[in-house]
Amino acid sequence: MDAIEKNLLKEVAELDSLPVGAYNIRANGQLAGRNTTANIDIVTKTDKPGIDIYIRPFTKNESVHIPVILSQTGLKDLVYNDFHIGEGADVTIIAGCGIHNCGGGNAEHDGIHTFWLAKNAKLRYVEKHYGEGDGRGKQIMNPTTIVHLAEGAEMEMETTQIAGVDDTIRKTGGDLAEGASLVVKEKIMTTGDQHAVTDFNVDLNGEGCSANIVSRSVAKDESKQEFISHINGNCACAGHSECDAIIMDHASVIASPALTANSVDASLIHEAAIGKIAGEQLIKLMTLGLTEKEAEDQIVNGFLK
Amino acid sequence: MDAIEKNLLKEVAELDSLPVGAYNIRANGQLAGRNTTANIDIVTKTDKPGIDIYIRPFTKNESVHIPVILSQTGLKDLVYNDFHIGEGADVTIIAGCGIHNCGGGNAEHDGIHTFWLAKNAKLRYVEKHYGEGDGRGKQIMNPTTIVHLAEGAEMEMETTQIAGVDDTIRKTGGDLAEGASLVVKEKIMTTGDQHAVTDFNVDLNGEGCSANIVSRSVAKDESKQEFISHINGNCACAGHSECDAIIMDHASVIASPALTANSVDASLIHEAAIGKIAGEQLIKLMTLGLTEKEAEDQIVNGFLK
Repeated sequence: MDAIEKNLLKEVAELDSLPVGAYNIRANGQLAGRNTTANIDIVTKTDKPGIDIYIRPFTKNESVHIPVILSQTGLKDLVYNDFHIGEGADVTIIAGCGIHNCGGGNAEHDGIHTFWLAKNAKLRYVEKHYGEGDGRGKQIMNPTTIVHLAEGAEMEMETTQIAGVDDTIRKTGGDLAEGASLVVKEKIMTTGDQHAVTDFNVDLNGEGCSANIVSRSVAKDESKQEFISHINGNCACAGHSECDAIIMDHASVIASPALTANSVDASLIHEAAIGKIAGEQLIKLMTLGLTEKEAEDQIVNGFLK
Repeated sequence: MDAIEKNLLKEVAELDSLPVGAYNIRANGQLAGRNTTANIDIVTKTDKPGIDIYIRPFTKNESVHIPVILSQTGLKDLVYNDFHIGEGADVTIIAGCGIHNCGGGNAEHDGIHTFWLAKNAKLRYVEKHYGEGDGRGKQIMNPTTIVHLAEGAEMEMETTQIAGVDDTIRKTGGDLAEGASLVVKEKIMTTGDQHAVTDFNVDLNGEGCSANIVSRSVAKDESKQEFISHINGNCACAGHSECDAIIMDHASVIASPALTANSVDASLIHEAAIGKIAGEQLIKLMTLGLTEKEAEDQIVNGFLK
């Protein structure tokens, strides 16, 4: 693994060396390293590209790293990863995709991730997307994430796209059984002429289940962002979505969150706000000696933290 | 005018007798009465059904009543009404449609209302929809309201659909010039198997203009409601939409409000909440001696007031 690839790994998975525990590293469409543990098995799919990750029931305090890095221009990588989280397990999965694209072609990674959480399983899923390049070809990432939460299962998704992704359509779908809980925290920043679409569709099917989707985004330069969500309350359940966007320069942002209550016992709320950085905030920081640019950066970093 | 028609007039326009000032009463697709004033002219269209209402610049403290009533089953009535509000005028227009439908057929009124508010004109527009019948045929109303607000114009719309409308698609579109202001307050209650769709599309085009859309609705029985809004901020402007719905029995409600910020200076917010009446509120009123039904009615009335 060369310096470029090591840097990508660090950006998307905060890894300086090989991770502890289970991992599967994919580089330029090929397996570049794998480790399994007594409780966590990783199996290459035979019918299509991708892996199956099996986590035994009641596995606790273990993690799986599954970073993907691309450093070849012109490569289009597509994987199907399935995650089978056993009953009562409590684990962390750290995914991430880094693209370094120096060359005339586009570099694209599309990951179709499907999660099956068994009864009372708990999962923290962290996904970080990062791109860099010389600007000639595009870095493209289209993640699709489908989560099936069985009775009492809990999943927390933290997704971050900070820089260098030119085009992305991020789709997340989910269905929740009785007492299940899904929390999504999304952070996106777009610059230049980047385009990001994020689309959630969650079915609250089981009594007492809940979903909370929080998206924070910053759109700079000429970039365009679109936030779409559909929360469908089909029983006694609680759904909340929140979309806050800071708009800068000549960017544009669309927020389109829909709530559907199909049951008298569904309680659904959403909020959205789009606006620029408040002038007073900028002035306050500038009186402390920061330039306007530094003040903006500090506010944006705080907002996305 | 018979007792049924008089009752419809009272329901939709709170009129016990002929109104003071300008009016145009339409009954069963025909003109049933008209009065004009020195400042307000009403002219029957010659190319299609409907009227043009002309309000002279700087007309103050005058009102126009334009109720429509239908008491014939099987009638489908379509009108195009245009409202030309002169510069600096400050007037109130009270529209409303009442349908009494006893018979096997549907009774339908579709009104296409277009408002042209000149510079600094102020308009309060009140619209009330009411239906009654023996339940064999449907009462259908599809109002389309388009508002064009010139520089500094202000319009406040209060629309109410309380009972007896089986099917409705309510479309409201608007464009606002510099400093214009649009406030919409909508109240809808649906019962039985009624279906109501309400669809707003507002373009904030002029510096410093603002739109505030507030929808409150109650869906009972098996009724279905859909709230859609699009607020498009194309300049330094402020947009707010709010949709609060109480869901009861086996009703369903969809709230789908979209915000589009095409300018860094657009400040856009929306909020929505769908849920049932809080149990504590019911219990509190029931301990005061109300039955559950009475307690519910009181809460619903307070919510829609």
